Amino acid sequence: MEICEIGEAGLLKLIFPYCLPGTVGDDAAVLAFVGENLVVTTDVLVDRVHFSDQTTSAQDVGWRSATANLSDLAAMGAMPLGITVGLGLPPDTQVQWIEDLYRGLKGCLEGYDTGIVGGDIYRSTVRTVAITAFGQVESSTVIRRDAAVPGAAIMVTGAHGKSKAGLELLLDVNLGKELNPIDRQEFIRAHQRPVPRLDVVTMITKLQPEFVAGMDSSDGLLDAISQICRASGVGARIERSAISIPSGLVRLTENPIDWVLGGGEDFELVLCLPLLMAQALVTLIGGKAAIIGETTVTPEILLVDDETEILLNSHSQFQHFGD
Amino acid sequence: MEICEIGEAGLLKLIFPYCLPGTVGDDAAVLAFVGENLVVTTDVLVDRVHFSDQTTSAQDVGWRSATANLSDLAAMGAMPLGITVGLGLPPDTQVQWIEDLYRGLKGCLEGYDTGIVGGDIYRSTVRTVAITAFGQVESSTVIRRDAAVPGAAIMVTGAHGKSKAGLELLLDVNLGKELNPIDRQEFIRAHQRPVPRLDVVTMITKLQPEFVAGMDSSDGLLDAISQICRASGVGARIERSAISIPSGLVRLTENPIDWVLGGGEDFELVLCLPLLMAQALVTLIGGKAAIIGETTVTPEILLVDDETEILLNSHSQFQHFGD
Repeated sequence: MEICEIGEAGLLKLIFPYCLPGTVGDDAAVLAFVGENLVVTTDVLVDRVHFSDQTTSAQDVGWRSATANLSDLAAMGAMPLGITVGLGLPPDTQVQWIEDLYRGLKGCLEGYDTGIVGGDIYRSTVRTVAITAFGQVESSTVIRRDAAVPGAAIMVTGAHGKSKAGLELLLDVNLGKELNPIDRQEFIRAHQRPVPRLDVVTMITKLQPEFVAGMDSSDGLLDAISQICRASGVGARIERSAISIPSGLVRLTENPIDWVLGGGEDFELVLCLPLLMAQALVTLIGGKAAIIGETTVTPEILLVDDETEILLNSHSQFQHFGD
Repeated sequence: MEICEIGEAGLLKLIFPYCLPGTVGDDAAVLAFVGENLVVTTDVLVDRVHFSDQTTSAQDVGWRSATANLSDLAAMGAMPLGITVGLGLPPDTQVQWIEDLYRGLKGCLEGYDTGIVGGDIYRSTVRTVAITAFGQVESSTVIRRDAAVPGAAIMVTGAHGKSKAGLELLLDVNLGKELNPIDRQEFIRAHQRPVPRLDVVTMITKLQPEFVAGMDSSDGLLDAISQICRASGVGARIERSAISIPSGLVRLTENPIDWVLGGGEDFELVLCLPLLMAQALVTLIGGKAAIIGETTVTPEILLVDDETEILLNSHSQFQHFGD
């Protein structure tokens, strides 16, 4: 069935069960608030630009949209209060697609005790999902990009490159014939069902580090390091051996480190904090969380191993990794 | 110049001056918060659905988008904290159009000590302006649709029908040849530069009425009365003589009362509160603010004058007025 057949009233009836009770149906949603600061972020996904029927089911579009926004909250050290969903739809959109989208959104949000609290549906020539997420944070634990100082440990909350690998597998059925099925499934899941690191926010709030800078790695690990360094006026020395290369990645590309540094959409956090705190946090998180280097006074970003130093922060490198 | 010529970096540089200092450039905006409740609302405007180059300059699109969202906050009794702007743009969009849009947004927001705190710009096939506004309100002064009781005064904060008149004048150059120029200018301004009634929120907060129900009249005066009555389980008796008909409206239509009741987009507030409080509020507001009737136990909405009673809340009437 297409949405032009059920009308706006039918559409709203369909969507209400996916919204937090008591929040929709008035001019705006009212939510109780206990933090000191409101944190707000907006992200828009457009059909054939940010997703496609080939790689992303409606449920995955919903899940990924929710994660992208919750990850931005996590990157500020904030816990979520709710999201609004602005949905642009052509009249011939399948009703099932919309229901699946909301199922995906709700599925992701439920894991973090939050949900949809409002939105707007409008006619458009292209399917568009505009999400605004808002959360709360105490002033003492806001994570800003510009708060890094030289000599801080740089850490990641998990592995990188898996989402890129999943996307490439979905785009090219001939890729990765020699990949073992478990790796394949893990890569595709990393792309379709990424997880925001709100669990890490809770840990940081408990640890109360002297300072913490950071952002999420939605645009890639190297991009995150570069943006933190630029905003904070520091450089970085990254130990190549400390960077985890997901098993199986070598079966997909000759340059796995490129995918790890530049792949994007892994939605991990990249953090700079005092070494002892970073060690404690890495232990708490477990898995592939790791200290990968340290911030420096000189503004370059260097990737070092036993024998070589590679300068990473040139514009051409960005273009290369950002493909 | 078209946006494809200046790129994303150029676009961001263009927009930053229109955002509140210190809010953009990180994963999300952080805003201090002092109220008890967060209020959130989302509204999306699409080219050729909600605006057109014929009736609305880019600056007016910005102004109207800001007003529509701030009006939703006012309708909840909330004062604004900020807005985010999600902007979908075809690559051939004129840079001037975007700058004018932000000028309009900022122009409206500045009047209420608030501004743009974030957003997202994305490629789209159709110009799309998705705004999320958030504000704060104390629990004691939340204005909800479902809080009306029988015997309450129904009041409006200003005149209705002017925005509709302005739109009709813009759509048809042959209309209103006999209209005096001051009325013409006032109607067109009402359509292009509507004003959210946040001033009334401040007054209500001071008056602290026993109860207050209400919503804004963005979808028309009758729609607002009907929605409040339905949500509260009451009816309404509206005095036709108490409803202000803007001077000049008779020169544009044979049925000015239809435009007043159904025109929409005047962004006034329609409120139900104890009679004495309503009288005090009407005096405070001045202008065309007026008590127009009272809520009743029987669920009908009646328009009454000395001789007749007209039943207004039938579905066919809605269709008629909503054209």
